[in-house]
Amino acid sequence: MKFLSPNAVKAYTKLAQKKYRLDERKFLVEGVHLVEEALNSDWVVEAVIVNERGFVKEVGGLERLNIAQTIGLYECPEKDFRKLTDTVSSQGIVAVVKKKEYSAEQFWKMFSSQAILVAMDDVADPGNVGTILRTCDWFGVSGALLSNDSVELFNPKVLRSTMGAVFHLPVFQDVDLPSMLDFAKTIGFRIIVTVIGAGTALGRYAFPARSIIVLGNEARGISPAVQRLADDSISIPKYGKAESLNVGIACGIIIHAASTQ
Amino acid sequence: MKFLSPNAVKAYTKLAQKKYRLDERKFLVEGVHLVEEALNSDWVVEAVIVNERGFVKEVGGLERLNIAQTIGLYECPEKDFRKLTDTVSSQGIVAVVKKKEYSAEQFWKMFSSQAILVAMDDVADPGNVGTILRTCDWFGVSGALLSNDSVELFNPKVLRSTMGAVFHLPVFQDVDLPSMLDFAKTIGFRIIVTVIGAGTALGRYAFPARSIIVLGNEARGISPAVQRLADDSISIPKYGKAESLNVGIACGIIIHAASTQ
Repeated sequence: MKFLSPNAVKAYTKLAQKKYRLDERKFLVEGVHLVEEALNSDWVVEAVIVNERGFVKEVGGLERLNIAQTIGLYECPEKDFRKLTDTVSSQGIVAVVKKKEYSAEQFWKMFSSQAILVAMDDVADPGNVGTILRTCDWFGVSGALLSNDSVELFNPKVLRSTMGAVFHLPVFQDVDLPSMLDFAKTIGFRIIVTVIGAGTALGRYAFPARSIIVLGNEARGISPAVQRLADDSISIPKYGKAESLNVGIACGIIIHAASTQ
Repeated sequence: MKFLSPNAVKAYTKLAQKKYRLDERKFLVEGVHLVEEALNSDWVVEAVIVNERGFVKEVGGLERLNIAQTIGLYECPEKDFRKLTDTVSSQGIVAVVKKKEYSAEQFWKMFSSQAILVAMDDVADPGNVGTILRTCDWFGVSGALLSNDSVELFNPKVLRSTMGAVFHLPVFQDVDLPSMLDFAKTIGFRIIVTVIGAGTALGRYAFPARSIIVLGNEARGISPAVQRLADDSISIPKYGKAESLNVGIACGIIIHAASTQ
């Protein structure tokens, strides 16, 4: 195994910052599970980097990973490796992955006449965005949209919370959500927003064949620009005292209802 | 307003540690919303502490809080205040609250013949425990049980994620879950565990009048000792690729189903 050059350490370390992820169109994934998901997906993995001893010790070697000959495999000293990781107790393995980017045309072409999508409108918490995508992945949601004021998809905490979902379903991120939804309506999607109290009770709502379920900001809910585009509003019944539900929980309940109707 | 004495600062600062919360049977809550929920509940608030300027500036004074004459109201310098808080950007207000503790007899007496309870079996993540309680609160779940190997209820991150639910529904924490469930069965509760794949599909399950829904550890699921006590196993249908659902999301979907059936 080759050692990662000091220049490569420098270049890859920068990917910890959003600015450089934007410029380079690459990002880091960390830990055996996520690296494995990346390797088994159709995303392009540029390099797999392990620390001197940690990885081999903790998870028993690289043999079980599907690392193609064309992928650079590097070792690096612990002190450099630490700059590449976001977690305190790392499993000693990271991968550098190229972003998969879509044109609007490519994105919308992927969906059949029966498709549920989830759109996030200014969802700010990385754990919420990741958990929402993980939930979409469980229920086989066709795709997701992430507004340009939401947290970035390639943020390490988001990636970790997705548990690999990012490699399973198409996510169009950094989008101007109102204009995307406006277009979606012209190709037969209905825009369904989730609100507290005032919408149709979830159990009484029949999801259309092409549905986009929009989830709003944790504190402010759906933005006015998106609200104006909504075809339907739905609400989850409340029987207790809490003022609101966590946005990920609301998402899970709604997607379960939409998938099993 | 009196200044908090150096001795009181010292004593209350210790409540940031679980060990002292156990000894003193008190805990700290932080931020306007949680302090307000504590003051409006039937829990005993021992003191409300504000920092020199922060609180008044940020949220416009103490007038709107329901602070009884009998509750100590103190001010303290920023450098001391910081020791009492767990968050980086504090709202400048904390309260010292006495734990509400139940005997098993008192706890079980609270429930009618129609009652859904949620039990957490070694749930480790503070955000998950808090979000589960917040969800229970939304759906009007009658009570919750938290096993002695789960994260502690009075952990600041748990309290924050509950959004005040801790003051709304009875939570019996630090319990030996198998023996509690064993007793619950003798008073007509059915024990329902959630498993991946192998259980009755959620949509086909009719929740009994007295149900305890048990949620397991994030990585290992339900413990063998609890599994042996289960009357029924249920599963959430999966249509996509994710290996699992977040435990809070699973909880939301199941409680919604149980509450609306």
